Amino acid sequence: MSVLTAGPQTSALLTDMYELTMLQASMQSGTAHRRSIFEVFGRRLPAGRRYGVVAGTGRVLELLQDFRFGADQLRFLADRRIVGEDALDYLREYRFTGTVRGYAEGEVYFPGSPLMTVEGTFADAVVLETMILSVLNHDTAVASAASRMSNAAGGRPLAEMGSRRTHEIAAVAAARAAAVAGFTATSNLEAGMAYGIPTLGTSAHSFTLVHDTERQAFEAQVAALGEDTTLLLDTYDVDTALRTAIEVAGTRLGGVRIDSGDLGIQAAEVRAKLDELGAVDTTITVTSDLDEYAIAALAAAPVDSYGVGTRVVTGSGHPTANLVYKLVAREGEPGPDGTAEWVSVAKTSAAKGSRGGRKQAVRVLDSGIATEEAIGIPQLPADLDDGRELLVDLVRDGEIDAAFTGAEGVRRAQERHAASVAELPRTARRLQDGEPALPTVFYTS
Amino acid sequence: MSVLTAGPQTSALLTDMYELTMLQASMQSGTAHRRSIFEVFGRRLPAGRRYGVVAGTGRVLELLQDFRFGADQLRFLADRRIVGEDALDYLREYRFTGTVRGYAEGEVYFPGSPLMTVEGTFADAVVLETMILSVLNHDTAVASAASRMSNAAGGRPLAEMGSRRTHEIAAVAAARAAAVAGFTATSNLEAGMAYGIPTLGTSAHSFTLVHDTERQAFEAQVAALGEDTTLLLDTYDVDTALRTAIEVAGTRLGGVRIDSGDLGIQAAEVRAKLDELGAVDTTITVTSDLDEYAIAALAAAPVDSYGVGTRVVTGSGHPTANLVYKLVAREGEPGPDGTAEWVSVAKTSAAKGSRGGRKQAVRVLDSGIATEEAIGIPQLPADLDDGRELLVDLVRDGEIDAAFTGAEGVRRAQERHAASVAELPRTARRLQDGEPALPTVFYTS
Repeated sequence: MSVLTAGPQTSALLTDMYELTMLQASMQSGTAHRRSIFEVFGRRLPAGRRYGVVAGTGRVLELLQDFRFGADQLRFLADRRIVGEDALDYLREYRFTGTVRGYAEGEVYFPGSPLMTVEGTFADAVVLETMILSVLNHDTAVASAASRMSNAAGGRPLAEMGSRRTHEIAAVAAARAAAVAGFTATSNLEAGMAYGIPTLGTSAHSFTLVHDTERQAFEAQVAALGEDTTLLLDTYDVDTALRTAIEVAGTRLGGVRIDSGDLGIQAAEVRAKLDELGAVDTTITVTSDLDEYAIAALAAAPVDSYGVGTRVVTGSGHPTANLVYKLVAREGEPGPDGTAEWVSVAKTSAAKGSRGGRKQAVRVLDSGIATEEAIGIPQLPADLDDGRELLVDLVRDGEIDAAFTGAEGVRRAQERHAASVAELPRTARRLQDGEPALPTVFYTS
Repeated sequence: MSVLTAGPQTSALLTDMYELTMLQASMQSGTAHRRSIFEVFGRRLPAGRRYGVVAGTGRVLELLQDFRFGADQLRFLADRRIVGEDALDYLREYRFTGTVRGYAEGEVYFPGSPLMTVEGTFADAVVLETMILSVLNHDTAVASAASRMSNAAGGRPLAEMGSRRTHEIAAVAAARAAAVAGFTATSNLEAGMAYGIPTLGTSAHSFTLVHDTERQAFEAQVAALGEDTTLLLDTYDVDTALRTAIEVAGTRLGGVRIDSGDLGIQAAEVRAKLDELGAVDTTITVTSDLDEYAIAALAAAPVDSYGVGTRVVTGSGHPTANLVYKLVAREGEPGPDGTAEWVSVAKTSAAKGSRGGRKQAVRVLDSGIATEEAIGIPQLPADLDDGRELLVDLVRDGEIDAAFTGAEGVRRAQERHAASVAELPRTARRLQDGEPALPTVFYTS
């Protein structure tokens, strides 16, 4: 049983209290049942970033499946008098029956891109706010950083190894988000089990230290894991360790890992010595405090693969994507004929304003290269209609599209990410601070 | 059933793969059963910080209770050939039977402080590495930031409201860590249910927007939640909203919240108008992108309480504590008489070196004010023995001390935090970058 998919559990209280007090108060005024559209978007990218990468969409759908209020939750809400009887009755029966559309997971995005829209009654949609934002803000932050690292690594394999530097369950989501954005493996076993991501890892310094000599440690590792294992060189002295490694494992040793020091210089020295000893196919992995800039700086070094920890799981300086979930449209009072009009709504505060209304989004392409993020409110002009449509159906009348979840969802998101990044102008892959790679243009009609 | 305490689940695969390949290889060489001591410490504090706050200790103990390898986990490990039969047999029976000592949760710490030591066989202790570091690195990062915000807030109440800006389950741990370090409430309902932390929250801008007028929204909220509720003022125009609020709720309105704009100026204007209208007891809460510096800047403003989101759950610029888990001592080969000597061990790389050996730690006090973090390897000189002992028993021979877990653990950690911060010299509470408030002094004997 996985900690992520275990039996009787629910995501329903992973929420800010005000979602439920708003439910209560909207039942009071009768607005709880107004059809509403909430939209997830980011007002801006983190400073200097050229694009962001949507991630977590599949996990939102997985959590939506478990979004139920059980007896324990209802008792807690009643005991603390957070909501009254009518709201408790509503929550007891809660099933999301609305519609969710959004950017496919792995898609790139820009300021104002409508990443996800949730349509249902106000009550149905408001109680999902915190869960949806938590998942998307975290996973998108990690994937957006991971995508830059993938660009910096060129074709070299990248492994996510940051579990120990983030919350123990966030670590699983981080491994998944990094995989969406081009990482080829993770050290996290739960992520391997839950999402089918390849896992890797061999040994730490403690393994060398628990043995009386480095040679004994290497012998034990090769005996247990085979000659194609990766030996860690920098517990004592890298030169000595390298010679011992080849003596113990032979020239068919799989790889060596360097976890400290000046990685570029060390990699060159280690490569020269490995070649001198005849271990020409033994690979070099480096793993010490890497980020996209350090990876780029190693482009000319004879490094075969990278392991990235802290900086990928913490979003390389931007640990949250700052996405918001805003009511953009709702029905008004029904007229004499019983039908209600949709009303676009938005907060009017200058600093935190948002654009009301239902939206359409396409990526405009010119000879296969993206030139514009075009957002129509509610629709785009006819001559823009041949851009690539960005909003896909994720949940239709409560029916979740399972193809976006689980290991299959990750696989599809990886493909989407690779295709979408390939479509961007070359400036998008620059690491230097700059403007978003595409302008977001709003068309109101 | 809580998502955190649900039935058949386990924390065992929340781990880096190499912990298990090291287990496998150490069984090969016979070192798996050597008694070992692993130590958790930080080489340095985040740049400029005066002290850190240990948090997550209680959660480590809670997860340790569930650290079991079930049928699904073992099948995954076998299918992927991560370990062989002998290691699978060992993991099937795995129960931690060793001893854990450490700083009490809520305690402050400095570079080199031995925050936690795990003593058991190499096998028993190595498989816990990732889980322990994930929990402590995350929770300590949040508590260390939260403690600075508590200092900045003086006696004013602080609420944690950052759930939406971090992973959905990390959010629960973040709420808990903030509570340990002086926050008085959280918006996160799961944290309220799991750890007994007071929860709060009333409404967002969407609630105002789903109504035809702001007045109708306020009327509904007051009818549902009572006149002592907190009304959100900045959906349209703060002045108008304030007048409407008092007209609807009367002068006994509980509070108003401002979530955008120049908070200091706005708070002063709102306070003046509330007083003018006779609502002298109506409180003002501010909640827009606060961190410790913004809180300090509002010290002279008529603000009654703060809500902090992003910056507390992401550690105010330092989302991980960068704590490490290192083997510091282990038994050697047994001699002819069958007894084995303890051997201090340490990696000798210059940049990432560590101090081997079992340790004792006391905080030296002078007239009740802390003056030094004294670490003895293995013991302190006799004349330092009257400092405050920092290492407490958390797990003895596999028996977890339940007083450190659950809501009781949080309550004790809050007391420990308050007492330990009070004991620090005044410079420790400065927000400006500087050196650690206490020197860490190592005594070897």
